[in-house]
Amino acid sequence: MESSSDTGVGDMAPPVASGRVAAPVPFSEAEIAAIRFGVDGLIPAIVQDAGDGTVLMIGYMDDTALRRTLSSGRSWFWSRSRQEYWCKGETSGDRQWVRSVHYDCDGDALLLTVDQDGAGACHTGARSCFYRAFGDPGGGPDGDRGVDDGAPAPG
Amino acid sequence: MESSSDTGVGDMAPPVASGRVAAPVPFSEAEIAAIRFGVDGLIPAIVQDAGDGTVLMIGYMDDTALRRTLSSGRSWFWSRSRQEYWCKGETSGDRQWVRSVHYDCDGDALLLTVDQDGAGACHTGARSCFYRAFGDPGGGPDGDRGVDDGAPAPG
Repeated sequence: MESSSDTGVGDMAPPVASGRVAAPVPFSEAEIAAIRFGVDGLIPAIVQDAGDGTVLMIGYMDDTALRRTLSSGRSWFWSRSRQEYWCKGETSGDRQWVRSVHYDCDGDALLLTVDQDGAGACHTGARSCFYRAFGDPGGGPDGDRGVDDGAPAPG
Repeated sequence: MESSSDTGVGDMAPPVASGRVAAPVPFSEAEIAAIRFGVDGLIPAIVQDAGDGTVLMIGYMDDTALRRTLSSGRSWFWSRSRQEYWCKGETSGDRQWVRSVHYDCDGDALLLTVDQDGAGACHTGARSCFYRAFGDPGGGPDGDRGVDDGAPAPG
């Protein structure tokens, strides 16, 4: 399970085992103004591995989570189930170091590229949360779609 | 703009200029039962280029759109703005030929890999809808994030 943390950016842990460091993403209020949050105040954020293009997960951000992500260079989300902010990997160690944040033509979806610490992004231990495919009876976190043949993204 | 089409799978146009053909995705009712549609009956569907991993767009599917996608091997979505089904590219020619449909650990997000016809997935003419990045003043459909250096996906 993901950690739950509502600490501010100033409380971020120092760089850890991976040796990766956070790089804040420059942004302007004009760019923020182009973002169209949904009626629930949230926008979906796709997270993609910056190295090989694997789609790792999807999360949801509100205005605060987006600003924390940009300011800190770490991925922050709003948990719809727990109704709280969380910084990805802060407890599990599966941290994400943000390399870019794109937004789509309608401004209603985000795409982060990240360097992913640890085994992967999924709380199951899989590299990608998208480890199951229709028509693939072997799919599973420990099934035949492991890191090497994980079909969600060609490498 | 995308075409709007509410025709059934049986009305699909024959294979076109790209020479690509549709490949239905096998699925079971047990797999469909693992999908958790939102309170609005929709699930986000990330669309990724099967060739190089570029994240092209995000759309939304209800149960019907998902079944049409799997059955036809073409990407079907529910348009929240127009309140109707649409088959991607049916008018524009920017068709998507589905190669896999993954679902995530929570069953509340989909990831399609596709072969993308035409210039790309975006109604602006950009290859990816995610052509703008925070901190990148040159971003735009015709800006400095073209096909070759389109940062949303490495590769």
